[in-house]
Amino acid sequence: VLIFLNGRLVPEDRAVVSVFDRGFLYGDGLFETLLVRNGKPFRWPQHLDRLRRGAAFLNIKLPFPPRTLLAVAGRLLVRNKTSDAILRLTLSRGPGVRGYSPAGAKRPTLVMSLHPLPLPPAPTARPRGKSAGRKTGGEESLPRWKLITATLRLPANDPLARFKTNNKLAQILARAEAEAARADEALLRDTDGHVVEGAGSNLFWIERGVVCTPPLGAGILPGITRALVLEVSRSLGLKTAERHITLPRLKKTGGIFLSLTSYGTVLARSLDGQTLQPSPLVAAIHRAVWAVIRAETG
Amino acid sequence: VLIFLNGRLVPEDRAVVSVFDRGFLYGDGLFETLLVRNGKPFRWPQHLDRLRRGAAFLNIKLPFPPRTLLAVAGRLLVRNKTSDAILRLTLSRGPGVRGYSPAGAKRPTLVMSLHPLPLPPAPTARPRGKSAGRKTGGEESLPRWKLITATLRLPANDPLARFKTNNKLAQILARAEAEAARADEALLRDTDGHVVEGAGSNLFWIERGVVCTPPLGAGILPGITRALVLEVSRSLGLKTAERHITLPRLKKTGGIFLSLTSYGTVLARSLDGQTLQPSPLVAAIHRAVWAVIRAETG
Repeated sequence: VLIFLNGRLVPEDRAVVSVFDRGFLYGDGLFETLLVRNGKPFRWPQHLDRLRRGAAFLNIKLPFPPRTLLAVAGRLLVRNKTSDAILRLTLSRGPGVRGYSPAGAKRPTLVMSLHPLPLPPAPTARPRGKSAGRKTGGEESLPRWKLITATLRLPANDPLARFKTNNKLAQILARAEAEAARADEALLRDTDGHVVEGAGSNLFWIERGVVCTPPLGAGILPGITRALVLEVSRSLGLKTAERHITLPRLKKTGGIFLSLTSYGTVLARSLDGQTLQPSPLVAAIHRAVWAVIRAETG
Repeated sequence: VLIFLNGRLVPEDRAVVSVFDRGFLYGDGLFETLLVRNGKPFRWPQHLDRLRRGAAFLNIKLPFPPRTLLAVAGRLLVRNKTSDAILRLTLSRGPGVRGYSPAGAKRPTLVMSLHPLPLPPAPTARPRGKSAGRKTGGEESLPRWKLITATLRLPANDPLARFKTNNKLAQILARAEAEAARADEALLRDTDGHVVEGAGSNLFWIERGVVCTPPLGAGILPGITRALVLEVSRSLGLKTAERHITLPRLKKTGGIFLSLTSYGTVLARSLDGQTLQPSPLVAAIHRAVWAVIRAETG
């Protein structure tokens, strides 16, 4: 496996960074994960745009222009002989002196690596014998996940939430909490009591036919797939709305689903052990999401 | 310079970790910084205890017993021919697969490194010609810092704040904001509007002779020097109290000061450009803090 590290393709055992890289010391960096299908990274400009906005906010200089990075992604795929994968870009502030001050750290670290696509939904949830030719977990059929609510809260209206930073302990602990409860994903509330997002996904629900999701200002990640869900919902003639929601009200709504890069959309079948009311609109949105992904990566 | 990395002393250019180390990917780890004086790490058991509690909370196994780590610290100091330094321990969850789930990451990374002591206060703040024999920045005289209030908020009552995690972007941005304003440190408020701590320090103020500091439950780091300040204040016959405080009220109190490993205590001379009322008690506390440090590392 070859990895792009600061301008060179290196084997995995040589893809290393200094223990004084501020990414390692403090999570001082950003990342992006993209779905690659037929050798094409889906919505590359949108992902790069989020990375660049985050880098500007953190005052980290992107060490390569976006067009170079896109060429590198292509080279990575060719050299690793793969065309369907998850592509991860990691940008850290690079090595620096001890202490929180970012002053003096002038050599950012940029890593690009390929990772396997996630597994498709468990066989019980789909007809057997259909896995040949599948591209990724969500393409074939709508995954159905068990959700829990995480104990940890995110800060309400956090300006940092607009970016995919390398500070992910809350999400890691939330995911671990989900796994300990034999669930697939955890929802996180903010300090105001609003449910804002999943550990690695954006939250949606359907209320009287309206496709709802928390507003971006609420301190959530502006997911690329979140934007796609809103886009296809409107193209299906559905109304969309950005709304705050509390946990008790969320549990009473129907059609809770999540959006994320690797699966597109995922239906929530239960939340904190309570079976949820499904909505037929979710499957329609899921198909529309994958139709766009296929069209743009065909 | 030699660095301890997972059981071996290696030169700095070989002190590297995988780009898939979860410390680098997600800030999935913890650290400690200790003051070393005369070859002795100050309050080692307290620092190790905080690291162990954090590791238990994050479910990361400490790969070496504390007594081994103490021996390593001694060896690091001897091999690097130094006896006065800042010692940093970094513990990350180690390499793992992509994704927030910590499952499967079973080889934690442990790094120990030595760093220079911070500079003493600027010469204008102390008599010239006295720097010979000085040990660290705060030992000789009480530093006087300009403070600002950071824009970013910390989550109120955050359980993660009890540990020194590698998720430090809020602190990094707060420190950068201070430096942009030509200040030395930034105070952070939480989402409830309480001033909770400095980017790299704990907050104190003196109210009618009582030494006050925000309560641990407020989502602050339980600083080792914070505990020392409370301890020496009581031994000086002063009352201490843990109280919430808002920014407007803080600006009206006297004797604002900070506690931190490298300097012991630091007087705040201004906050957001407003000159602060000093308290003679701060210098007394500072002397008492350094008397304990000298006694325990003599």
